[in-house]
Amino acid sequence: MGDVNALGAAMAMMDWDQQTYMPRGGAEARATHLECLSRMRHQMFTSDEVQKDVVDAVAEASGDDVALLRVIKRDLDLATKLPSELVGRKSKLAAIAHEDWVAARSKNDFKGFAPTLEKMFDIAREEAEHLGYTDHIYDALTDQYEEGATAADWTAMYESIKQPQVELVKAIQAAGPIDDSRLYGDWDKAKQSEFTEMISKAVGFDFNRGRQDTAPHPFCTGWSVGDIRLTTRYKPYLGSAIFGTLHESGHGMYEQGSPKAWDLTSLAGGVSLGFHESQSRTWENIVGRSKSFWVRFLPDLQKAFPAIADLSVDQFYRQINRVNPSLIRVEADELTYNLHTLVRFEIECAVLTDELKVKDMPEAWNDKYEKYLGVRPTTDSEGCLQDVHWSMGSIGYFPTYSMGNILSYQIWNSLQKDIPNTDELFAKGDFEPVLSWLQAKIYSQGRKFTPKQLILNATGEPMNAKYYLDGLSAKYHELYNI
Amino acid sequence: MGDVNALGAAMAMMDWDQQTYMPRGGAEARATHLECLSRMRHQMFTSDEVQKDVVDAVAEASGDDVALLRVIKRDLDLATKLPSELVGRKSKLAAIAHEDWVAARSKNDFKGFAPTLEKMFDIAREEAEHLGYTDHIYDALTDQYEEGATAADWTAMYESIKQPQVELVKAIQAAGPIDDSRLYGDWDKAKQSEFTEMISKAVGFDFNRGRQDTAPHPFCTGWSVGDIRLTTRYKPYLGSAIFGTLHESGHGMYEQGSPKAWDLTSLAGGVSLGFHESQSRTWENIVGRSKSFWVRFLPDLQKAFPAIADLSVDQFYRQINRVNPSLIRVEADELTYNLHTLVRFEIECAVLTDELKVKDMPEAWNDKYEKYLGVRPTTDSEGCLQDVHWSMGSIGYFPTYSMGNILSYQIWNSLQKDIPNTDELFAKGDFEPVLSWLQAKIYSQGRKFTPKQLILNATGEPMNAKYYLDGLSAKYHELYNI
Repeated sequence: MGDVNALGAAMAMMDWDQQTYMPRGGAEARATHLECLSRMRHQMFTSDEVQKDVVDAVAEASGDDVALLRVIKRDLDLATKLPSELVGRKSKLAAIAHEDWVAARSKNDFKGFAPTLEKMFDIAREEAEHLGYTDHIYDALTDQYEEGATAADWTAMYESIKQPQVELVKAIQAAGPIDDSRLYGDWDKAKQSEFTEMISKAVGFDFNRGRQDTAPHPFCTGWSVGDIRLTTRYKPYLGSAIFGTLHESGHGMYEQGSPKAWDLTSLAGGVSLGFHESQSRTWENIVGRSKSFWVRFLPDLQKAFPAIADLSVDQFYRQINRVNPSLIRVEADELTYNLHTLVRFEIECAVLTDELKVKDMPEAWNDKYEKYLGVRPTTDSEGCLQDVHWSMGSIGYFPTYSMGNILSYQIWNSLQKDIPNTDELFAKGDFEPVLSWLQAKIYSQGRKFTPKQLILNATGEPMNAKYYLDGLSAKYHELYNI
Repeated sequence: MGDVNALGAAMAMMDWDQQTYMPRGGAEARATHLECLSRMRHQMFTSDEVQKDVVDAVAEASGDDVALLRVIKRDLDLATKLPSELVGRKSKLAAIAHEDWVAARSKNDFKGFAPTLEKMFDIAREEAEHLGYTDHIYDALTDQYEEGATAADWTAMYESIKQPQVELVKAIQAAGPIDDSRLYGDWDKAKQSEFTEMISKAVGFDFNRGRQDTAPHPFCTGWSVGDIRLTTRYKPYLGSAIFGTLHESGHGMYEQGSPKAWDLTSLAGGVSLGFHESQSRTWENIVGRSKSFWVRFLPDLQKAFPAIADLSVDQFYRQINRVNPSLIRVEADELTYNLHTLVRFEIECAVLTDELKVKDMPEAWNDKYEKYLGVRPTTDSEGCLQDVHWSMGSIGYFPTYSMGNILSYQIWNSLQKDIPNTDELFAKGDFEPVLSWLQAKIYSQGRKFTPKQLILNATGEPMNAKYYLDGLSAKYHELYNI
């Protein structure tokens, strides 16, 4: 397992490098190297020897090793159930599909991309058959990203938030827009870098055990509890770098919080995509978009960017929380974000079960945007061609983003029972009590428990949207005076 | 071999990262990962399957494959002759020895380091016995770095340059010092980065297929002909970054010049350490320390650093070519550099053959510095503790630096028969004819020929110091008016 970990680390290093520093000319060899390492890792991990060792070890395990072996067994089952031939075929299609998708998006040519996308959904169906499921074909696919999650879970999750969210958005729109145009400009990159590193450090991301670089799409990756890295990006919208950094710092602190004793083992790191997203969303939205956070940091931001020196904390707080139903998911605000993933979830299910043909996807997409968000794409580039995920074959992934949003508020509710004065602490720039609480309840747990068990352990109840809806409702009623 | 290449690429990536961007906390896991990958690579490369495949392939090879298999066979023999146990033991000792060496150098405690160093020389002797040799134990060790080189070769090389170099240095010292104090200061790093990238691009290093970062010790590494990377460093001496960058650009252009068809195979890259160093020295010293180079670039440098705006090209040229016998190899000028490596070569030979005990090394070192350079270290930190190489077990390596110096002038002499007007070209900033010539004669040859054959092919004669001595003599007699 040490060798498997080392090969994974090598791949993560090459991937990080490709997204941050690699010169253009390196792409071809990088693909070759990653293909070799990925094949070696898969062969090594799924070898008869490892399979047998795991079975033997399970019989004798005690203490944390029981959990370790459960996790290894799960990863091994996922890796073994898919035939190498299918894995290879998917990789190849993904490489072509990515190019096709880039071209199709830039030319607004869904028809040209549809045959490739159909093949990718065919492969997803094949995968699902190999992985196995009882109720819904979606269950097999989504379980890869969120252990134990099913289509029924996601349907229930969206059912619980859909109506209240759509209504809240409508009420906000009726109240009239917030003008955040002051936050757009040609902001100095070095100063953005300095400011974002400062707030990342302030909330508790440890730069002795991590760093921040820039990449077109922010992400977090790592090699050990001692080396976790964030990326951010610098855009005309000043909030892009700030909230990108806080988001990735949340992922990063989760990773940095794994117990040292589990380092480089399968128990280290985040338990699932949904849980990981709950932590990025906590630090981005609940902490980073709070008024008290900016009581502390707005003066520093204004010192770095005197062009906004006249904004009051109230004004700034309103502007960074502007709600604006729009067409593009990655630019969506906190409130409308889930409606974007809902559209994708419904379309994935419909295509997988053949209720919807790939060729009819654009119209279905546009109808749903109109229904849930009140906006209708005029091009497919701004519509169903906008996301990279399906071209990579990541089908069953989107609902985990919404799970993260919902969980973040549920966990925060529990946290506030122990730490009721978070606003007071944030206004002083003291994030230690909050980080320690999350560290104890979640980060230190690594992958020891299943996600469903970890929610129970941390909050005393299964995932439910009550706290999320209450939290958003309170926040936005106050913000928009509705 | 593709998998072996991919594992090597992964290790090179992790090494580059460790020297450039890795946070401190990443060191422990990095060591674990590198150990795993290194072991996997060695096992894979030296497996019975590969051995057999190579033998079979040799029988059927034609065209460039003959050379490819010769190189693979050589690398494989080197890898196979050393028992895994010894390789592992050396790695472990090297890890400890590095820590011991850092501590000993900072505390000027040679006695504390001597037992570790003795163990490392013992391991070198063991290695030599496994690798095999006919005449001198040194032959087995140095052949790892410079194929076919022997102690007798190095002795002859040093014999041919020792006396003339020592005498030239004495004459220069009698002529009185050049004052280069104007080149020391607190120079802006961003401007140094910009200027060094500009001259690196100008001489022909392709930034679409490479990049430059910073590291404590400049180096060059790469993953393919499309991704070769340099590092430089920013010091109070303005020349550190400039000549560091030109030096590494020389290594880099050599690597970028490998034929695309050989990419990711054992035929790609530089043929030996000595040859590689000849190219870094060419671009650093023959090109970069020429007057004509600065006719073109001094105005740009002065624009970036107005503090030296009043220096004439003549003054600047004299200052960057100042000869000053000193204690530290890595800070040595072009002329005295070989005397530093000579001391190390003589000491390595004496210790390996038991003529010198490790405990008596400091005195032998200091005596030789006095004899050859006319300076005597007052501490071992400035003496025999200054280099990292022996703590890593790199014994037999130093003479390749001098080989590089000598070869650079020999190759330049041949080049000037075809391109006599290099000064005219440099003054216009036109380096294309020189790069094309070196590309055709050396870079495009990769590892196809042995180093000794390649010297013959490129210059029509075996390595000899005539051109080097003549070149230095002419340059420094003019510079110092002697």
